[in-house]
Amino acid sequence: MSATATATEATATPYARVAAYAAPAPGAPLERTTVPRRPVGPHDVLIDIKYAGICHSDIHQARDGWGEGIYPMVPGHEIAGVVAEVGADVTRFTVGDRVGVGCLVDSCRECEYCRSGREQHCVQGATGTYNALDRNGEPTYGGYSTRLVVDENYAVRIPDGLGLAEAAPLLCAGITLYSPLKHWQAGPGKKVAVVGLGGLGHMGVKLAHALGAEVTVLSQTLRKEADGRRLGATHFHATADEAVFEELAGSFDLVLSTVSAPLGLDAYLGLLKVDGALVNVGAPEEPVSLNLFSVIGGRKTLAGSMIGGIAETQEMLDFCAEHGLGAEIELIDADRINEAYARVLSSDVRYRFVIDTSTI
Amino acid sequence: MSATATATEATATPYARVAAYAAPAPGAPLERTTVPRRPVGPHDVLIDIKYAGICHSDIHQARDGWGEGIYPMVPGHEIAGVVAEVGADVTRFTVGDRVGVGCLVDSCRECEYCRSGREQHCVQGATGTYNALDRNGEPTYGGYSTRLVVDENYAVRIPDGLGLAEAAPLLCAGITLYSPLKHWQAGPGKKVAVVGLGGLGHMGVKLAHALGAEVTVLSQTLRKEADGRRLGATHFHATADEAVFEELAGSFDLVLSTVSAPLGLDAYLGLLKVDGALVNVGAPEEPVSLNLFSVIGGRKTLAGSMIGGIAETQEMLDFCAEHGLGAEIELIDADRINEAYARVLSSDVRYRFVIDTSTI
Repeated sequence: MSATATATEATATPYARVAAYAAPAPGAPLERTTVPRRPVGPHDVLIDIKYAGICHSDIHQARDGWGEGIYPMVPGHEIAGVVAEVGADVTRFTVGDRVGVGCLVDSCRECEYCRSGREQHCVQGATGTYNALDRNGEPTYGGYSTRLVVDENYAVRIPDGLGLAEAAPLLCAGITLYSPLKHWQAGPGKKVAVVGLGGLGHMGVKLAHALGAEVTVLSQTLRKEADGRRLGATHFHATADEAVFEELAGSFDLVLSTVSAPLGLDAYLGLLKVDGALVNVGAPEEPVSLNLFSVIGGRKTLAGSMIGGIAETQEMLDFCAEHGLGAEIELIDADRINEAYARVLSSDVRYRFVIDTSTI
Repeated sequence: MSATATATEATATPYARVAAYAAPAPGAPLERTTVPRRPVGPHDVLIDIKYAGICHSDIHQARDGWGEGIYPMVPGHEIAGVVAEVGADVTRFTVGDRVGVGCLVDSCRECEYCRSGREQHCVQGATGTYNALDRNGEPTYGGYSTRLVVDENYAVRIPDGLGLAEAAPLLCAGITLYSPLKHWQAGPGKKVAVVGLGGLGHMGVKLAHALGAEVTVLSQTLRKEADGRRLGATHFHATADEAVFEELAGSFDLVLSTVSAPLGLDAYLGLLKVDGALVNVGAPEEPVSLNLFSVIGGRKTLAGSMIGGIAETQEMLDFCAEHGLGAEIELIDADRINEAYARVLSSDVRYRFVIDTSTI
């Protein structure tokens, strides 16, 4: 075993080491380090990362909230950059192209889901952009870094109309909202409520409005009302006021919950019209309570959704470029990542921190 | 007030009194009595009831399980009979027609749901066939009776190919399963699991099989396996064996739960393919627990369904006639209703009691 491994190492192109910010251990502050990137293979592109968004799940994973975390961990799955090198067989990109990478960097490519553009549902499990083992068993490292090597089939093109910094969060927050909005047919004549106005929710409002739906924000308080209306909401209600649930009963075709606090599901299902759907893209770890009669009477749907496939991610970016939709961001230097994490946890961000990776 | 009421009574055609079995008070045994039926109005048909199915919800309501029960209560919303008289303006039926009446006998007829054939979702609330007040504020009395007067728009035609006794349970149990099977597109190439093989479940198996789906029964034990296979199931599993949930993980496009015992929702959601749906047509009164991640990963749906509209009920009857599908019944005389109730509660019926109303 070890002899073979040594022989392989001797003949392989050495891995490059690139600068990154990593959590060295569960819950430890992120610090500057270097991590290996594989040689550029025939189907790979090397990306000069320019910007990386901070997603709430980065914080969760850095603190090993889901267990079995791989350390050192370089988070980041909202990645925007420029192609710096392409492998011999690459056909989709050339050097200088503006590209993005989202939550997954590989999948089996053979199952019914991979073959139908739903790589996120790969039966073997898609390879996460970080905190995962790739198809060769090597750890993956995310976007809080200066360079990334990825198979061209798992990168998407960022249209010229989009700024790279504002585009970065679209790779997770954008597709996470776009996919269910399309699947549950948000559009003209439809009434859509977005629960929670954070990193996910603010993209939900922008996208649902651009798709032509009438958008309502349901937030705990009216604190962000002006923002909500500016982003595209026609109505804004504070859910701390329980009378809202009576007032809005039976109003919506689609309610999209972006919050990870436990929701009163029966109350939110009561907001739906007949045949309406309550779709969760955020969720608490612990079980929630539900009275099944809340879905039986009006043939209602309680569902969930998780990011989207590669082709749909490209479609989302093209849609955003066409409608001039980027994320609302606060650009930070890399040495402020830990401070940003604390602020995300206290909901003190409007609406996404993006790391300028030139400062790593 | 009382003067006006007296005047009205004096000029109105007197109500006929017809024989019926009624619960005189919450939980009291049903006994023979008479109840009033309104005069046949211009749009009404008078039906000689021949058969009435016993639905689990009859027992629930007779015992005032949902509260606010109206007594004496004549249950029965699985009604099959023959038209004995038609009002002056009736166009859809003539004397001698074989007809059925299901769970509702009126609705507002003006809301978006009534206008689109979804009377069961009427925004004003459809009028229940029994244990309800009609549009004039008079109590409605159900099918455990010899005659019924109903607006022609709330009766359906029972095709010649169906026996009246076997057709009666289709008016609730049949449509309750047919509607979600059609809505969630059970058909060739689809794998459908039916949870529970009782009055509802046995119709689910027959209908899903006739629609072309591959049907699996999930029952607590293998006690009814032979029946399940005879009714159209290709597979039959006992859910008491927890290994079943691992073995069948990710197998089904649609899981239809017909049981009112609390299900482990997360386990049943695990049986679904990506984009699959767990649809509840039975449900416990008390809240159940759910981990929302069970729907997020595979974009799964947890939904409910409740009977169907009038047009869809007619479509279901026509489908059943075409495929020779009636309910599996045990025909009883009216003096055995209370005994039948006890047997339903102990799951001792294969698969629906039907009352021969000539014995009332």
